[in-house]
Amino acid sequence: MNSITTATYSVHFNENAYLALNDHLANSNYSKIFVLVDENTHNCCLPVFMSHIEGEYDFEIIEIEAGEIHKNIATCTQVWEVLSELDADRKSAMINLGGGVVTDLGGFVASCFKRGIEFINIPTTLLSMVDASVGGKTGVDLGPLKNQVGVINQPQMVLVATEFLKTLDQRQLQSGYAEMLKHGLISDASYWDTLKEITGFEKLDKLIYTSVSIKNEVVQIDPTEQHLRKTLNYGHTLGHAIESHFLESEEHDLLLHGEAIAIGMILEGFLSYKLTGLSKNELEDIKKTFLARYPKTSFTKKDIDMILTLLKFDKKNSHGNINFVLLKSIGKTAIDIKVTPELLKESFSYYAE
Amino acid sequence: MNSITTATYSVHFNENAYLALNDHLANSNYSKIFVLVDENTHNCCLPVFMSHIEGEYDFEIIEIEAGEIHKNIATCTQVWEVLSELDADRKSAMINLGGGVVTDLGGFVASCFKRGIEFINIPTTLLSMVDASVGGKTGVDLGPLKNQVGVINQPQMVLVATEFLKTLDQRQLQSGYAEMLKHGLISDASYWDTLKEITGFEKLDKLIYTSVSIKNEVVQIDPTEQHLRKTLNYGHTLGHAIESHFLESEEHDLLLHGEAIAIGMILEGFLSYKLTGLSKNELEDIKKTFLARYPKTSFTKKDIDMILTLLKFDKKNSHGNINFVLLKSIGKTAIDIKVTPELLKESFSYYAE
Repeated sequence: MNSITTATYSVHFNENAYLALNDHLANSNYSKIFVLVDENTHNCCLPVFMSHIEGEYDFEIIEIEAGEIHKNIATCTQVWEVLSELDADRKSAMINLGGGVVTDLGGFVASCFKRGIEFINIPTTLLSMVDASVGGKTGVDLGPLKNQVGVINQPQMVLVATEFLKTLDQRQLQSGYAEMLKHGLISDASYWDTLKEITGFEKLDKLIYTSVSIKNEVVQIDPTEQHLRKTLNYGHTLGHAIESHFLESEEHDLLLHGEAIAIGMILEGFLSYKLTGLSKNELEDIKKTFLARYPKTSFTKKDIDMILTLLKFDKKNSHGNINFVLLKSIGKTAIDIKVTPELLKESFSYYAE
Repeated sequence: MNSITTATYSVHFNENAYLALNDHLANSNYSKIFVLVDENTHNCCLPVFMSHIEGEYDFEIIEIEAGEIHKNIATCTQVWEVLSELDADRKSAMINLGGGVVTDLGGFVASCFKRGIEFINIPTTLLSMVDASVGGKTGVDLGPLKNQVGVINQPQMVLVATEFLKTLDQRQLQSGYAEMLKHGLISDASYWDTLKEITGFEKLDKLIYTSVSIKNEVVQIDPTEQHLRKTLNYGHTLGHAIESHFLESEEHDLLLHGEAIAIGMILEGFLSYKLTGLSKNELEDIKKTFLARYPKTSFTKKDIDMILTLLKFDKKNSHGNINFVLLKSIGKTAIDIKVTPELLKESFSYYAE
């Protein structure tokens, strides 16, 4: 499978991935190489990763606790302190081996350590392969607010090794699949149709490649999120607020990112039907597709009020306005759409129907 | 006084400064404008600043505690939380009004908030005017380690309004003057001679302009500190370690940054005499100049051991080597010079003589 080239680095797949990495390490003369893992990837992925490394390197392994709840400044500070203790310098590098928490946090830690050291991302979840492998977004949460602190900075390379997908349970695969469905909704109706038809997650390689390609095209046209890149936030305005609310709430179990944006895509589908011309049939198709794959969640009136309050922290907002990305049709988007609170509440009623 | 143009922004002086700021604010359509101050600049500088602002803006004032000891991630987190509470969005801007702590920390906070909002620096100390106004270095300390966490990111503009120097005591003025003397040592022997001759700090405007110009030339040639920009670290390798040690130590009073690098410049002058051809006369000139202006400090054997231990955290290090910037002569530098521990100890003996 060919590598995908972004503005500044390449995403290498499977058989090419470790060839590229071994070549890069052999030619980089890093003073030290740190591998950031969480408890899960330490056990399941690190041995696999190590088995592919040629040459002798004294990797230093840094483990953080798994889970979105640890994607915060306190964890960053711990990693910065460990890097200092282990004599990391500006010529050191960090390899982030894990899901979105590890790659988002690790990218931010590396970007700020001594004002920036090089880093390489090896996403191990479907979600991070299709979502975090392109675009250079790094960051951590601030309390319940997702990715409130971070920078845009590019890795040296990204490796997509789909063998790691074997370490994931069905729920985690579903979570990543939601982002792939989003790629269909925002840019390619036939890709949406293809994705809807798959019945299992055994043969994902080509689809992952398509998703990474779609995201790369969008980011290359608009790296700083002035217009087209905003479309990648479809389902995320409400999805992030729902995810944040469930992270804080004691009455709800945590939602995985893909589960939260699956709900967000139904809700914002309804808004699209009301405001930007999405047809009734397409709306029903979106709702049916997601509800067949993701558990239906109940929202109390209080939940909805709190979710709508959290919307004001969305990073696309400006001047007090909440800006939505909506669909004109499947595969076509409209950006910077304002929505009234009444219609937002109506979207939750439609979801509950 | 003409503005100095860097690669991406301008440094405006005195009569031009507020003209440029008022013009910029009027044309920027920021959703909110935050002014970051510390306790001191809140009292002494904010009223002066406000008196120059034309137009109606609801500035939100954020105050942090004064002092290097508060230039850390905990303070950043507090400011990020306040920004979130006050509904800052990506179209908001931050004006950092203060010394190096406020501009370094404020620049870092702005660079990471929602992955980056615009910021403007208004240095109010002599040190931050001549040192922090050019180069885009932002960051905070990690425990005793100076500027261990940060990014390189440029402000929208920098205003140098020398009227703020009236708010400083003699010791703070001396601290900034040390950086100016460094500019002479690393690039211009006649500027060094001019600076040595001044007897008071009443007429600094032209000298500040010269210092900012020197730093700007260096940074424009080497923005990412591969070679020439390293020369700005003259006196800082040992100076930072001394500053860090005194920050941690209960037996010593705090040293201001300029006081610490003044010692560092004598010590590294001695190393230059031993290793890179600085003449005996020039070394004596450097020692005499700094000791006439900065209090002589006593170092115990234990102090020296701890300072040498801290050297390993210097950001110019790589592959376990400590890299010094030394002088070939006054006005001419040599970079990436390795020094033995024995010679480092000898430099402290020379300082104590």
